[in-house]
Amino acid sequence: MGTKLGIGLLGLGTVGAGVAGILQAPEGRHPLVAELELVRVAVRDLQRPRPIELRPSLVTNNPQAVVDDPSVQVVVEVMGGIEPARTLIMRAIAAGKAVVTANKAVIARHGEEIASAAAAAGVYVLIEAAVGGGIPIIEPLKQSLGGNRIERVSGIINGTTNYILSRMAQEGVAYDDVLKTAQDLGYAEADPAADVEGFDAADKIAILTGLAFGGPVDRDSIPTQGINNLQSRDVDYATQLGYRVKLLAIAERLNSDAQTSQSLPLAVRVQPTMIPLDHPLAGVNGVNNAILVEGDPIGRVMFYGPGAGSGPTASAVVADILNIAGIRQLGEINGSLDPLLAASSWRSCHLVDPSAILQRNYVRFNAEDTPGVIGRIGSCFGDRGISIQSIVQFDASDAGAEIVVITHEISQGQMQDALTAITSMAEVKGLAAHLSCL
Amino acid sequence: MGTKLGIGLLGLGTVGAGVAGILQAPEGRHPLVAELELVRVAVRDLQRPRPIELRPSLVTNNPQAVVDDPSVQVVVEVMGGIEPARTLIMRAIAAGKAVVTANKAVIARHGEEIASAAAAAGVYVLIEAAVGGGIPIIEPLKQSLGGNRIERVSGIINGTTNYILSRMAQEGVAYDDVLKTAQDLGYAEADPAADVEGFDAADKIAILTGLAFGGPVDRDSIPTQGINNLQSRDVDYATQLGYRVKLLAIAERLNSDAQTSQSLPLAVRVQPTMIPLDHPLAGVNGVNNAILVEGDPIGRVMFYGPGAGSGPTASAVVADILNIAGIRQLGEINGSLDPLLAASSWRSCHLVDPSAILQRNYVRFNAEDTPGVIGRIGSCFGDRGISIQSIVQFDASDAGAEIVVITHEISQGQMQDALTAITSMAEVKGLAAHLSCL
Ligand SMILES: NC(=O)c1ccc[n+]([C@@H]2O[C@H](COP(=O)([O-])OP(=O)(O)OC[C@H]3O[C@@H](n4cnc5c(N)ncnc54)[C@H](OP(=O)(O)O)[C@@H]3O)[C@@H](O)[C@H]2O)c1
Ligand SMILES: NC(=O)c1ccc[n+]([C@@H]2O[C@H](COP(=O)([O-])OP(=O)(O)OC[C@H]3O[C@@H](n4cnc5c(N)ncnc54)[C@H](OP(=O)(O)O)[C@@H]3O)[C@@H](O)[C@H]2O)c1
Repeated sequence: MGTKLGIGLLGLGTVGAGVAGILQAPEGRHPLVAELELVRVAVRDLQRPRPIELRPSLVTNNPQAVVDDPSVQVVVEVMGGIEPARTLIMRAIAAGKAVVTANKAVIARHGEEIASAAAAAGVYVLIEAAVGGGIPIIEPLKQSLGGNRIERVSGIINGTTNYILSRMAQEGVAYDDVLKTAQDLGYAEADPAADVEGFDAADKIAILTGLAFGGPVDRDSIPTQGINNLQSRDVDYATQLGYRVKLLAIAERLNSDAQTSQSLPLAVRVQPTMIPLDHPLAGVNGVNNAILVEGDPIGRVMFYGPGAGSGPTASAVVADILNIAGIRQLGEINGSLDPLLAASSWRSCHLVDPSAILQRNYVRFNAEDTPGVIGRIGSCFGDRGISIQSIVQFDASDAGAEIVVITHEISQGQMQDALTAITSMAEVKGLAAHLSCL
Repeated sequence: MGTKLGIGLLGLGTVGAGVAGILQAPEGRHPLVAELELVRVAVRDLQRPRPIELRPSLVTNNPQAVVDDPSVQVVVEVMGGIEPARTLIMRAIAAGKAVVTANKAVIARHGEEIASAAAAAGVYVLIEAAVGGGIPIIEPLKQSLGGNRIERVSGIINGTTNYILSRMAQEGVAYDDVLKTAQDLGYAEADPAADVEGFDAADKIAILTGLAFGGPVDRDSIPTQGINNLQSRDVDYATQLGYRVKLLAIAERLNSDAQTSQSLPLAVRVQPTMIPLDHPLAGVNGVNNAILVEGDPIGRVMFYGPGAGSGPTASAVVADILNIAGIRQLGEINGSLDPLLAASSWRSCHLVDPSAILQRNYVRFNAEDTPGVIGRIGSCFGDRGISIQSIVQFDASDAGAEIVVITHEISQGQMQDALTAITSMAEVKGLAAHLSCL
């Protein structure tokens, strides 16, 4: 098999230590794992105790030294954050080295820049670990599902929020209490904002969108609603109505007849969503992730598994390294490579205005318990051509009447109109919740 | 992108027509689809009307002419059966052409011969469509999960039987009645033996085993039990006890500490299995398939989707063709390729004796309704060191007492001992059912 492939790790935290663990114990794995050699590792704090034993000469606190080391052929960036990660990735590419990264934040924001640089340099940048932890989803979208016209990608792609939502549904616990336990158990960070406010899921759906539909979209324009304002009351009502609340990231083509020559309109968003119990995503609990891909002619496929954690994420990183090792085994390659996002830049895509997004809605109003209020709220929807699937009054002794409405599919612009009209009704005290609904 | 890649189709039935349909409408799919050109198609009956319009000059009833056509660079074998499929695949390889096939029967039986020939000729033979229809599972096992030590692959990999079992469970219909409807609906063949007797699932698990554990196993030695003798009574009892009955194919390493230098002992089998309701495979209904892969360090990942049908299966075939087209885009390759099963022949594996298979069991006895019979059956297990999870007497007015036992995990050798002893008890009329249990 010739000389080993030199691997340089940037970071030896949760993911980095997992990767080093696999490389140190190749037995029973794909035979190419034994052809990988960990030659350099960067950390921030040289004194910190590590779960992995490494020759001290391997470890440095200068990440640039790892990138520049001539024995490093593949740079594995598992340090996180935007900088210096981005600069180090660009430096590796410029040096003609392959890059593997788990860093969704960098790829969601600088993916295009990185992909063009990689294409120009003829090197690979692979990102399987950036979405879905151990679940293979990047490769399927790039290749195994390539024969399809993708209609929609939707998924539970943040394990922390799914853990919180699962416990809220199963035990009726309030958001703040579950978050605290999740932090104690290490399932949520001390600063949980990126997870609970939906930004992590938005990074990931931005990446999946580019791969599924063939063109990058502006990460910062993705409408994003987290679970931090979700009330356990709505989780309970969801259960009573036959739904589960999940933080769902969705990307779908809006006009399925659009010519490929025009820019493709996409509706992309992250939001708490009521999922009917018989939907395959409804049963995804705990820190698991699942991604559903719908397309023609495949129909629906779902990928399910551990969305984070040392071992699963390291599994995805090593998959990418093996990919590079396999290509290298093909011998000297004379043509140009197909780096990461090249295959995702064959078409122009754009995000539609949020008011054009079509979806079913769950809304909850606080209202006075006066006769006929349900009818008047219903008419307000009906007058605007919004058909309703169900309208239910729940008794919330503390809050007067609570009226929950589930609509059929409607544009968010029309929905806003109706909500404005309803909340200005004298007997309606306010809009207490507005979720999306599958 | 240069000249198009010439595709020759052997067969234009369910799958072949799906493939032709994708190639004829590349819009919205991976851009490489537009670089594929259908140049020759073989069918058996030139007169038969087809759902796909093709220039008559493309179509022949001589499949060898497709393989030999110099404009055909990739031979897509979707005709089925062992011969002439095998000979045509070997002929394509000998001519240096890449092969894509959906034919699990040929690959399960002649995979090694085909893989060696492919390795010698330096061509690809890809088989994504042979298992799981549209679900990407071959590629993940070959590559995306390559960093893992696989412990177990289990799955619902026959859509026909899963459709039958789902309807039996949901509607309490008898096996024969559902089979008939399934045949009328086209979900089951006129001759359903390959599906309902488990042979199709055995072909597929043989293929998955080779890829997951790195060495081929003898297809014909895989213990295989179908659903053709399954009684609706056991499906009902399963439901009452909190299980679903599924036809499960399982491959697992028995001795997880075995040195890789020794032959790896594997327990592989196909059998109706009781699956607890909270298990991810329990909710897989209708013609869907799902494959669960368990390994270190990934834990568990599941792949779910349509396991058969024209569109899904064609999606997998086209994925393989795209793979070949992508590699070709890399330019002239000087090294040797990594054909299909090469990566699955890096280790020696063998099937353990069926008596060594460890599993939980569901057994049902017909017995006389005499006091203490449950106790005596229980003791018979206990005396042989078999611990029992539950023992329940169901009242079957027509058949005296029915005693259902669910055991903890035990070798099938020990289980047989106990069953022999119990069925020789005077008050036990017979063993009415014996299923496996997760
Ligand atoms: N954890 C997961 O489950 C998971 C899942 C999917 C993707 N990811 C992504 O994987 C990446 C790594 O995550 P993680 O959880 O492994 O993070 P982590 O546990 O915080 O580890 C980060 C590692 O990078 C090192 N590092 C950070 N900045 C550095 C610098 N400037 N110079 C040198 N070394 C530096 C740290 O060194 P010290 O140890 O000395 O501090 C640490 O070893 C992130 O992009 C994350 O989003 C993580
Ligand atoms: N159907 C599925 O959902 C599915 C899923 C996964 C895998 N597969 C596999 O895919 C393969 C094809 O399945 P299928 O369902 O598409 O079969 P099918 O509908 O029976 O089609 C077979 C095609 O091959 C042609 N053919 C058969 N023998 C031939 C011969 N000797 N010379 C020339 N042409 C010949 C037939 O020609 P005529 O049309 O003229 O008879 C027909 O077009 C099988 O290996 C099957 O196991 C099928």
